[in-house]
Amino acid sequence: MTEAEKIVKLQMQELGQQARAASRLMASAETSAKNTALLAAMEAIDSMRTALAEANARDLKAGEEKGLDAAMLDRLELTDARIETMLEGLKQVASLADPIGEITDLRYMPSGIQVGRMRVPIGVIGIIYESRPNVTVEAASLCLKSGNATILRGGSEAFYSNQAIAKCIRKGLETAGLPETAVQVVGTTDRLAVGELITMPEYVDVIVPRGGKGLIERISKDAKVAVIKHLDGICHVYIDDGADITKAVNIALNAKTHRYGVCNAMESLLVAESMAETILGQLEQLYNDFDVEIRGCEKTRAIMSEAKPATEEDWNTEYLGPVLSIKVVAGIDEAIEHINTYSSQHTDTIVTEDYSRGRRFLREVDSSSVMINASTRFADGFEYGLGAEIGISTDKIHARGPVGLEGLTSQKFVVLGDGHIRK
Amino acid sequence: MTEAEKIVKLQMQELGQQARAASRLMASAETSAKNTALLAAMEAIDSMRTALAEANARDLKAGEEKGLDAAMLDRLELTDARIETMLEGLKQVASLADPIGEITDLRYMPSGIQVGRMRVPIGVIGIIYESRPNVTVEAASLCLKSGNATILRGGSEAFYSNQAIAKCIRKGLETAGLPETAVQVVGTTDRLAVGELITMPEYVDVIVPRGGKGLIERISKDAKVAVIKHLDGICHVYIDDGADITKAVNIALNAKTHRYGVCNAMESLLVAESMAETILGQLEQLYNDFDVEIRGCEKTRAIMSEAKPATEEDWNTEYLGPVLSIKVVAGIDEAIEHINTYSSQHTDTIVTEDYSRGRRFLREVDSSSVMINASTRFADGFEYGLGAEIGISTDKIHARGPVGLEGLTSQKFVVLGDGHIRK
Repeated sequence: MTEAEKIVKLQMQELGQQARAASRLMASAETSAKNTALLAAMEAIDSMRTALAEANARDLKAGEEKGLDAAMLDRLELTDARIETMLEGLKQVASLADPIGEITDLRYMPSGIQVGRMRVPIGVIGIIYESRPNVTVEAASLCLKSGNATILRGGSEAFYSNQAIAKCIRKGLETAGLPETAVQVVGTTDRLAVGELITMPEYVDVIVPRGGKGLIERISKDAKVAVIKHLDGICHVYIDDGADITKAVNIALNAKTHRYGVCNAMESLLVAESMAETILGQLEQLYNDFDVEIRGCEKTRAIMSEAKPATEEDWNTEYLGPVLSIKVVAGIDEAIEHINTYSSQHTDTIVTEDYSRGRRFLREVDSSSVMINASTRFADGFEYGLGAEIGISTDKIHARGPVGLEGLTSQKFVVLGDGHIRK
Repeated sequence: MTEAEKIVKLQMQELGQQARAASRLMASAETSAKNTALLAAMEAIDSMRTALAEANARDLKAGEEKGLDAAMLDRLELTDARIETMLEGLKQVASLADPIGEITDLRYMPSGIQVGRMRVPIGVIGIIYESRPNVTVEAASLCLKSGNATILRGGSEAFYSNQAIAKCIRKGLETAGLPETAVQVVGTTDRLAVGELITMPEYVDVIVPRGGKGLIERISKDAKVAVIKHLDGICHVYIDDGADITKAVNIALNAKTHRYGVCNAMESLLVAESMAETILGQLEQLYNDFDVEIRGCEKTRAIMSEAKPATEEDWNTEYLGPVLSIKVVAGIDEAIEHINTYSSQHTDTIVTEDYSRGRRFLREVDSSSVMINASTRFADGFEYGLGAEIGISTDKIHARGPVGLEGLTSQKFVVLGDGHIRK
């Protein structure tokens, strides 16, 4: 281990120890204290706009000098609108019900004891993200509300912006009488810090990586703690035999064109053979209006004359852009088979009026969200009524689908007796 | 990689591929088929008692020749009583409600869509356990009922017994028309097989190790998939100021002496100073009757004259035997502090008549089961009404406390619309 590695290791261990200690206090923090902290952080951000702008300008300047591309610089910028969204987000998280301490399913057992479950924080959450500084506020506020301590490691390009935001959050915690170390931002841009953060099970309980597939795969591979993974979104819409044409066309259009660069956009459209001529005939013009490039199977190309041939790779690709692969299938069996083979288990929809086939699709498609007659674009924490989301898990362990406050918690058993002993 | 390693790797990969394929079929298997398989396996075991006895005798003979100790040989033996328990267990798991496909919390959202959650299997569960062959049936039956495929790796000492039991389970699956590869027992005693099993995330979703602390720690360290961990049980009873004397004495006695070698037995007793003289005075004689060795703090020793001095190590020890450490504490603050420092986060109880202190204990003690006025011995899947348990998780990710069928499942979101698109 080099001298530099030793220093980073010590720094991260110190953050970890402080987070672990803070997590104990946060676990029993009162709801009102947590809400006070969130609202005081909101006020701090509002009153420190100048300092935030200066810090952000510093990051932007460094980014330009480093030659970051326009998209990256855009994500980095803390515009007024983004600051408003951050403030709104803090207010909203403060208004959410506190999940912690909720007792459910408290029932009497034959022995006479009452057994139930109480929702508790996980402990310490590590968040690793790329250059969007607004994630600092989103992630910190959700972890805070759910009674966890958090260690945030943002992209080095947003270093000064993140430090300035962290200062506001610390101010909020201080105002509420909560430990300032409940939210810590890693104070070094050294990449070694990430390696440490994901391999300290004694101090960190779970890692939430937010960013590209490469980042998430790297972290999952090396982590020594649980990772709430959100890999890609290869989402499907299947238009079933006898589907309502209007619903089918609307959903197929919305799922592809409402927004392109999002994980819940449709990337592959499957159409039952009996519907292909009608549906694809109508969609051809509509997709054309949106300049969506079509890559189709042979039967698709027989209907949509401008479609390019789809290759095996197309069924495996998350385009995140105005491109769509289309396959004509015999019916629901082939559709489910195709989806369970190529879907990234994010979100898949059937458009159908048939009771039995809808029921089968819900049961047999193995994705984190399965839908009937609704656009894949609804797969989202806000749309699902979770209040907010820290990511969308395509995993099956701990959390699946949009992860809100509940995904950052666990449940312990509570037992109430009256002197009961085991016979 | 040596030639032997290559062979084991290939064998395990084949098991993995088969398990993954079987898990797809199991996920949509009907409840009746799963129950038929369980009951047919029961009948197969019942009718193949002679073959089971022969296989078990072979393991026992080899164990004796290897010089296994009496306790290990005892765990290895398939007595008639144990076979009856296995049969009873299969019947009971068949009678449990099927968790798979259950939809909960289906609610209308402001957008008009309905959003709910459906319980789904995890996929492929790897179980690693020591020499008790009855675990083969317990683990296989719970995984089967919860719609998972499973790969079982029992201790090499029980190799022939496990193979014979596996044959009966395969017979059950075959009778029900389910894939025989839904339950597979590793066909080699090579230790390399464990290393492979825990590092095949493409084929195995979660590992449940059942056995000693050493086994679990080793597996957690090396695993590349999630591990449902059950480490030690350092359980506490705290007798609060003003506790009911009879309840306190009964619980302190039951939690220690009902059974010694179990993880939910009390290992440390904490007594509020105001109660120490009365409680410890009564307990001295009772523990003495059970030959329980007492290791106490100074104040304890001033009351219980035969107590040995407790060292720091005692507070950290799971005795699993007739030994108990006792500490006199100032009150609930010191009790909670002590428990959150030394408890293994398994199960801790307060004996109290005080509303506010009971409420605090439930909230602030960070263990998988927290109890008021009940013996720690109740921390058990059956006593909690889970029907059965595959282990007790002291972890906070995915499952915490006794893990029944639900811990072997996940939840996906289901969305029902009527042509809804995102605005």
